Amino acid sequence: MVMPRRTSQGMSLTIGVDVGGTKVAAGVVDETGQIVEKLRRDTPSARPDTTMDVITSAVTELLARHDVEAVGIGAAGFVDHTRSTVLFAPNLAWRDEPVKELVEARIGRPVVVENDANAAAWAEVKLGAARGQEHVLLITVGTGIGAGLVFDGHLYRGRFGSAGEPGHYRVVPDGRLCGCGNRGCWEQYASGTALVAEAREFARRSPEPAARLLELGGGSPEGINGPAVTRAAREGDVAAVECFDIVGGWLGAGLADLAAILDPGCFVIGGGVSDAGGLLLDPARRAYENGLTGRSHRELAEVRLAELGPDAGLIGAAHLARTADRAEAELT
Amino acid sequence: MVMPRRTSQGMSLTIGVDVGGTKVAAGVVDETGQIVEKLRRDTPSARPDTTMDVITSAVTELLARHDVEAVGIGAAGFVDHTRSTVLFAPNLAWRDEPVKELVEARIGRPVVVENDANAAAWAEVKLGAARGQEHVLLITVGTGIGAGLVFDGHLYRGRFGSAGEPGHYRVVPDGRLCGCGNRGCWEQYASGTALVAEAREFARRSPEPAARLLELGGGSPEGINGPAVTRAAREGDVAAVECFDIVGGWLGAGLADLAAILDPGCFVIGGGVSDAGGLLLDPARRAYENGLTGRSHRELAEVRLAELGPDAGLIGAAHLARTADRAEAELT
Repeated sequence: MVMPRRTSQGMSLTIGVDVGGTKVAAGVVDETGQIVEKLRRDTPSARPDTTMDVITSAVTELLARHDVEAVGIGAAGFVDHTRSTVLFAPNLAWRDEPVKELVEARIGRPVVVENDANAAAWAEVKLGAARGQEHVLLITVGTGIGAGLVFDGHLYRGRFGSAGEPGHYRVVPDGRLCGCGNRGCWEQYASGTALVAEAREFARRSPEPAARLLELGGGSPEGINGPAVTRAAREGDVAAVECFDIVGGWLGAGLADLAAILDPGCFVIGGGVSDAGGLLLDPARRAYENGLTGRSHRELAEVRLAELGPDAGLIGAAHLARTADRAEAELT
Repeated sequence: MVMPRRTSQGMSLTIGVDVGGTKVAAGVVDETGQIVEKLRRDTPSARPDTTMDVITSAVTELLARHDVEAVGIGAAGFVDHTRSTVLFAPNLAWRDEPVKELVEARIGRPVVVENDANAAAWAEVKLGAARGQEHVLLITVGTGIGAGLVFDGHLYRGRFGSAGEPGHYRVVPDGRLCGCGNRGCWEQYASGTALVAEAREFARRSPEPAARLLELGGGSPEGINGPAVTRAAREGDVAAVECFDIVGGWLGAGLADLAAILDPGCFVIGGGVSDAGGLLLDPARRAYENGLTGRSHRELAEVRLAELGPDAGLIGAAHLARTADRAEAELT
């Protein structure tokens, strides 16, 4: 049986690791979700073993300073249903990588592996915007759209571990080309990429009303980026607000589709674009409420902003390590 | 504690009731899903109490001839999460109707209430096409599209009991008007209604190649119905086969969307239009396999035909009554 290790405050600690395409973040997290210490390292994604080295060295450094029970790793990729192996990670070199086994061998602590969006959803349900909810869809709106699904109080992974890719359901037949090879995927209409594309197109078409966007873009449509659109919209710039209205409208229409299929109690909207708050969520809520089938005969899921920010994946991975560890302890 | 009642073959019996907009079917079902006796009655849907009278009289008649443990009622409507009350049934007069309580009071047996598509999905998972599968989407293709979702081996009902309406997710922005009030719903493109609309439109536009369809329709496009399209397609009629290709294509595209979101192990296609078998499923499978995001990096869910036919709802309701009864027995 694993004996719980405790801090001077009596709280047990776990480590959460968020492995993305460009960065690894590793943090020591207490029972309440507070991050005690965090390290960030660049991800050398070209080779599987160097990614593993970065994870191991960051965790080892944290283990030297903290008494830690277990480690959770959230990775941007498909994870098998035993939560041990990363099957495929689009932005990493991992293919059928036995991450749990390899990291456990190097650090001598129990390890659990989870998809990063699932880990973030778990964190928001346990410690963030969806506390107390049992049917939650976390939608992260960044460069693309990610998702974590919690059904009946449990993370839902699907039969083969690849559930939760609503960013690639089709919202427009023969629509915009997507990186996945299909056309018309939701994330081509309701992501940060879509927001920037709308703003650039606006500036090309109507440079005069887009003067502020062009100014923030250094004079050219191609210079306009996501933070510029958010900044202009916060200043009340009409063109920028219209871009958020369009993208928020597509976001909300997709939430209505997901609610028709899954009837969640709560949507949590996270990811970089959600930093814009009401600029994104207000039009999304309107489109969701107008678009939901049978809306006069059902209760509507709330649409909330994520609370835990970019650390949600790390915090969720740490929390999953904690529960996995307890489950094992109870069995022995 | 409820003592199991047994037939001369030693098998315990339950009753399943399928309450639709036009008919009530009630049947005595054994442990293997075999229907021992079945009654059908018209549904007087205008008043809640007459619907209840029909259910009670059919069940009472069956109880007089069979030794039955419990009753399951599958109803075409939203059922609350305690499986007691029908909240809203579009084709019945029930609004917040406490069906479990009312029927139990009249027949003196434990009653469980379930959405009819959920009951059918449960039957296919336990006794039909998806035996042994834990992640199953049943899609019924009839006048509209219905669905029952089984996740991790359990029926999924959503937060408010209204999950499983993919027929009303939007596949075409500003598309065809749907009975739900929205535009572009999946069931306007991939249902029996859509099949008939395609055939009639074909006959109006190109009467010569649609000669066989027109003949089966009594000479006019408006006379063409679903069975006529299926019959012509079975004969090899090119126009009718094209109608199935179009509708099957929309069906498969929707399955790809659902798989992106939910990653099931198996789709089961039921409902009246699925009687056409490969005529519907072959184009659906092609569109599904061509449309699934990340298809080269994942396992594909199978697309199977339902096995239990129009009795699936009744059989599933009876099976749910059995398990609900056992669960209660174990608790007492």
